[in-house]
Amino acid sequence: MTGKYRIGLVGGTGYAGAELLRLLCVHPHADICAVTSRQAAGTPVAEAYPQLRGMIDLDFSDASVDELADCDIVFFATPHAAAMHDVPALLEAGKRVIDLSADFRLRDSDLWARWYNVEHACPELIERAVYGLPELNRAALPAADLVACPGCYPTSMILGFKPLIDAGVVDLDHLIANAVTGVSGAGKSLKPGFLYAEMADSFKAYGVAGHRHLPETRQILAALAGKEVGLTFVPHLVPMIRGIHATLYAQLNETRDLQALFEASYVDEPFVDVLPAGSTPETRHVRASNMCRLAVHWPAGGDTAVVLSVIDNLVKGAAGQAVQCFNLMIGAPEACSLTAPGPVP
Amino acid sequence: MTGKYRIGLVGGTGYAGAELLRLLCVHPHADICAVTSRQAAGTPVAEAYPQLRGMIDLDFSDASVDELADCDIVFFATPHAAAMHDVPALLEAGKRVIDLSADFRLRDSDLWARWYNVEHACPELIERAVYGLPELNRAALPAADLVACPGCYPTSMILGFKPLIDAGVVDLDHLIANAVTGVSGAGKSLKPGFLYAEMADSFKAYGVAGHRHLPETRQILAALAGKEVGLTFVPHLVPMIRGIHATLYAQLNETRDLQALFEASYVDEPFVDVLPAGSTPETRHVRASNMCRLAVHWPAGGDTAVVLSVIDNLVKGAAGQAVQCFNLMIGAPEACSLTAPGPVP
Amino acid sequence: MTGKYRIGLVGGTGYAGAELLRLLCVHPHADICAVTSRQAAGTPVAEAYPQLRGMIDLDFSDASVDELADCDIVFFATPHAAAMHDVPALLEAGKRVIDLSADFRLRDSDLWARWYNVEHACPELIERAVYGLPELNRAALPAADLVACPGCYPTSMILGFKPLIDAGVVDLDHLIANAVTGVSGAGKSLKPGFLYAEMADSFKAYGVAGHRHLPETRQILAALAGKEVGLTFVPHLVPMIRGIHATLYAQLNETRDLQALFEASYVDEPFVDVLPAGSTPETRHVRASNMCRLAVHWPAGGDTAVVLSVIDNLVKGAAGQAVQCFNLMIGAPEACSLTAPGPVP
Amino acid sequence: MTGKYRIGLVGGTGYAGAELLRLLCVHPHADICAVTSRQAAGTPVAEAYPQLRGMIDLDFSDASVDELADCDIVFFATPHAAAMHDVPALLEAGKRVIDLSADFRLRDSDLWARWYNVEHACPELIERAVYGLPELNRAALPAADLVACPGCYPTSMILGFKPLIDAGVVDLDHLIANAVTGVSGAGKSLKPGFLYAEMADSFKAYGVAGHRHLPETRQILAALAGKEVGLTFVPHLVPMIRGIHATLYAQLNETRDLQALFEASYVDEPFVDVLPAGSTPETRHVRASNMCRLAVHWPAGGDTAVVLSVIDNLVKGAAGQAVQCFNLMIGAPEACSLTAPGPVP
Repeated sequence: MTGKYRIGLVGGTGYAGAELLRLLCVHPHADICAVTSRQAAGTPVAEAYPQLRGMIDLDFSDASVDELADCDIVFFATPHAAAMHDVPALLEAGKRVIDLSADFRLRDSDLWARWYNVEHACPELIERAVYGLPELNRAALPAADLVACPGCYPTSMILGFKPLIDAGVVDLDHLIANAVTGVSGAGKSLKPGFLYAEMADSFKAYGVAGHRHLPETRQILAALAGKEVGLTFVPHLVPMIRGIHATLYAQLNETRDLQALFEASYVDEPFVDVLPAGSTPETRHVRASNMCRLAVHWPAGGDTAVVLSVIDNLVKGAAGQAVQCFNLMIGAPEACSLTAPGPVP
Repeated sequence: MTGKYRIGLVGGTGYAGAELLRLLCVHPHADICAVTSRQAAGTPVAEAYPQLRGMIDLDFSDASVDELADCDIVFFATPHAAAMHDVPALLEAGKRVIDLSADFRLRDSDLWARWYNVEHACPELIERAVYGLPELNRAALPAADLVACPGCYPTSMILGFKPLIDAGVVDLDHLIANAVTGVSGAGKSLKPGFLYAEMADSFKAYGVAGHRHLPETRQILAALAGKEVGLTFVPHLVPMIRGIHATLYAQLNETRDLQALFEASYVDEPFVDVLPAGSTPETRHVRASNMCRLAVHWPAGGDTAVVLSVIDNLVKGAAGQAVQCFNLMIGAPEACSLTAPGPVP
Repeated sequence: MTGKYRIGLVGGTGYAGAELLRLLCVHPHADICAVTSRQAAGTPVAEAYPQLRGMIDLDFSDASVDELADCDIVFFATPHAAAMHDVPALLEAGKRVIDLSADFRLRDSDLWARWYNVEHACPELIERAVYGLPELNRAALPAADLVACPGCYPTSMILGFKPLIDAGVVDLDHLIANAVTGVSGAGKSLKPGFLYAEMADSFKAYGVAGHRHLPETRQILAALAGKEVGLTFVPHLVPMIRGIHATLYAQLNETRDLQALFEASYVDEPFVDVLPAGSTPETRHVRASNMCRLAVHWPAGGDTAVVLSVIDNLVKGAAGQAVQCFNLMIGAPEACSLTAPGPVP
Repeated sequence: MTGKYRIGLVGGTGYAGAELLRLLCVHPHADICAVTSRQAAGTPVAEAYPQLRGMIDLDFSDASVDELADCDIVFFATPHAAAMHDVPALLEAGKRVIDLSADFRLRDSDLWARWYNVEHACPELIERAVYGLPELNRAALPAADLVACPGCYPTSMILGFKPLIDAGVVDLDHLIANAVTGVSGAGKSLKPGFLYAEMADSFKAYGVAGHRHLPETRQILAALAGKEVGLTFVPHLVPMIRGIHATLYAQLNETRDLQALFEASYVDEPFVDVLPAGSTPETRHVRASNMCRLAVHWPAGGDTAVVLSVIDNLVKGAAGQAVQCFNLMIGAPEACSLTAPGPVP
């Protein structure tokens, strides 16, 4: 794989879009040809992102499918319920699509409609989409022309629960996921609750009654388990910019060396790092990185397993995972452009 | 109750001590007579706390019991294993003691020694101590001469679990408490992990293998339940100054209107506020306040109860609760000096 | 002064309004009768401000003058160009008005119109307004029926420059004010730049070409100096919630003991605290407090004076100063309800 | 230039050392051979820096010169007054040294001794050192064997003042530099003032009486001006991790198009970016980047120039600048390993 692919990005003004530009502008096999935005059309991309001055010399273009005619691969970093309107035409035109939004994540279009409050525009394409978690679906990615990148919370939860479920050692009816996110997870939503003065120096839960990442995670865990799972998921908002930390609780059915189990599960994974026994991962240690770091504990030798899982919600939880899928799709090394460690502190 | 009590404060340079001074310097029945500190003896208290300039005109005195001879009531805001050395002499001399440290919280001195890595200096006094959670022990406080104020995490967890345990509606073997604290909970410890550059913009768990507030909480919950309870407690550190948020999970044994249960449980409590159904309390809404705010959820009508409990770790979790106890001990209105709402934002 | 005054608050949903409610709900001479808000009319005040649950039992009322008929004193915590439409009728009806907005701060209505981009609605009332900085205008407040509370930056700058200008020891043509504010200074503006994810972990200047607090400050400094002054003012935004820190630079015309000068200037002021020589005030030491703390330096004994001035922008820079004016207007002790020290950390 | 240089790093446990490892571990011409640390000798580097797990497979070695015998180039990221003890032997042994500490920055060893409170250990080598600001000394770097990397504040101030001084348009007697830094500028110092709970949500000046970066900056500005300059420098601490923002004030002697002047001054510089007229640079836009971004203003067309200068204190202010020097020393492209944009938000 030596050439360059012509890349289009739809929805270039959000955080996931910005992160994609950061990763792709130095990617040896990516040539960014179009960045679309309804509001910003006509203005230089580098004006919206001063950190990219000198790195990207494009104006935002109109958010129409025509603007993407010259592209080989189109990334969507749009809010939900946007990509599904453009994807049919793009696939028709022979483009490959990597969708960072939620449009093609749920297999069941009725379930999707219930959680996203709108009918799905192309339910017939859902089955064609590969769920873009390479740790599950690596083999399917080279041939994929439609990839549904996982949500950020689901990525952190699925990678944390997977070894326990695969090994069949936990009670599947009472899984608990207590997770927190930095505020960039909300995107650039102009809601009072995301103002600095409202969020700083405080902490709260939200979406306790039901969060859209719940059915997505349940769907994948059920596929792993081969049966429905009971999952209570409580997300929280932390005064930090990036990062997801999931604290996962599961009742153990049998005694097992969980540390060895986790290490064996991920020994070949380039972007899942099982920490030494006794560790407590910090979100800053995956900041701006595509790595998921995991630690597994079973406090006081009891019957409750505790898994700690951290990712950067904008990288392994969004843009980085999309680039990992892109690499697999084009036959490039899986880690291409994803290895530089993030800045700490 | 109209007079003034002469107050001594041992360990005046930590955060709980500072918070006590903030509350007591405007308390109508408190006359602060001595503030001791080993390192700071001889320097003005207001030099350590510029925010108190003009409010308190004392120098730190030596940390000897003699300095407290004129006091009626002595507060300890020392690290653990300090108060226990001075308390016997103070009680002997007729003083009443309010201990914010951990020295008299655990009923079992062997258990205490195991968790605090030192023999207890006066195990015979442990039984005399009243556990200073007014919501449990209000009746015992007027006559108490030794009060063991609860830890911050235990306060948030106990108040959140209490209605469920009292009502006998949950599985007591698998309680889960996922809690987070602002960094002032660590006091002024000079450890690298508490530096701004290390803590900001990050999130992590700690103490997963066992935290000292676990046996304390288990002891109280067991007393409420009338039997041992199984509790998994995972504390986390949030980049914020103050605040504890506990997210509590319990499996329900029976269907019950939990909102009504919680409201009824705390209807008469001045410092426990059950929020309307569907709420998600924020730590900033109890900042600098003695209030505990609770919300109870049972997501998707399932069999898992989720209780959200927030306190200010330095107020209801330390100094404010101590003043609440003080008020009850001297016969003042329970809320005296504790009603001013905190600043938001 | 023993009775209670009936208080109306117009614009109760912003940060200055919230801060006024915090201070007035425990004020012995204030009886909050009406809190108006266009958007929130009909909903409980305590719903918008959970920290006030149990402290204030009113619904927001419509933002019409009629709602204020029963009030003795009306506070405006509205954006600029709102109060000026209601004030004439209120004064007519015999109410006294304390305006926290900018409407009556500038003496010159043309200048006002230029900076605020709208004609003044009642220029004839401007002269009647007392500029509510007690340190300048204490004598005029008892009789005032219209008080224009100073802006937050101007308060910090005027109090810092005043001793130097009064003493006539600095070059008035090249004053420099480099000031920073916490983000609550922007109010609850829903602009992307004030989102947590945009503001956290960053620092920037803004309004370099001209900020509305420049003509206000210049007007007052000129009045102190008896002539026009040259002032360069560069405001900056800091990732913190509250607080203003002004670093003021002035070229000295003559040698003088500046420490003694500052101490003498403010010896009788209850809310201006000159720190010991060599100090560097921190904004957190005035958090939630009405105090302005000052330090004066002249580095290396050179000809440049450096004054450091800190206030809480929502208290001494807004609501606290308004209450200080209120106290003077009603003949209560000037510090009534303003003495409780703020929480640190 | 195609080969690899064997790199030693002395003082690998501080923030500048960590940042060097981040940049060098992916540098095509760097082979990290030794990372020394007195306290951490024997432990894996990746244990101290979990973000580098998988990227660097070395243990910290003893802090002795022998450990560096195999290296071609040695970086010092030590506190001041350490490098000067090892440098003579290293130069003797034919190594080239890049010192990030202050030891070889001041030309005058007496001045150095006064500001650093210790005699210089090898004053005879000071003259041999090249001040490692490529924008000033690019030509001297290829032949240099001892490079004194500039301080972080000096970098931001010098690059901001340089065009004005070079053009001879400002009063050199009254330059003012009001600068702020994120807390990583203090390194990992275990002082109470740098604890999260002390620093968060607050702002303060420090070192008003004199900061070590003052004589360094004055020395360079004087060299540019050809005469002594009067500079008042007030540093401040901001609750953010990284970043320096300098707000520079200078009185103009003559009218000039400052925007054009700045653009022309830096047109060929790869790491100095003059923003469009009217801009206000944000520190986050240079986060984890080697770029210095500048904006120049002259408010109200008056006689005061205001220059805004931002850098990442750990990159352009330390490790990045050192790598830029390294690239020039070895004949690699100047921007090698320094072009990836930083993560925003």
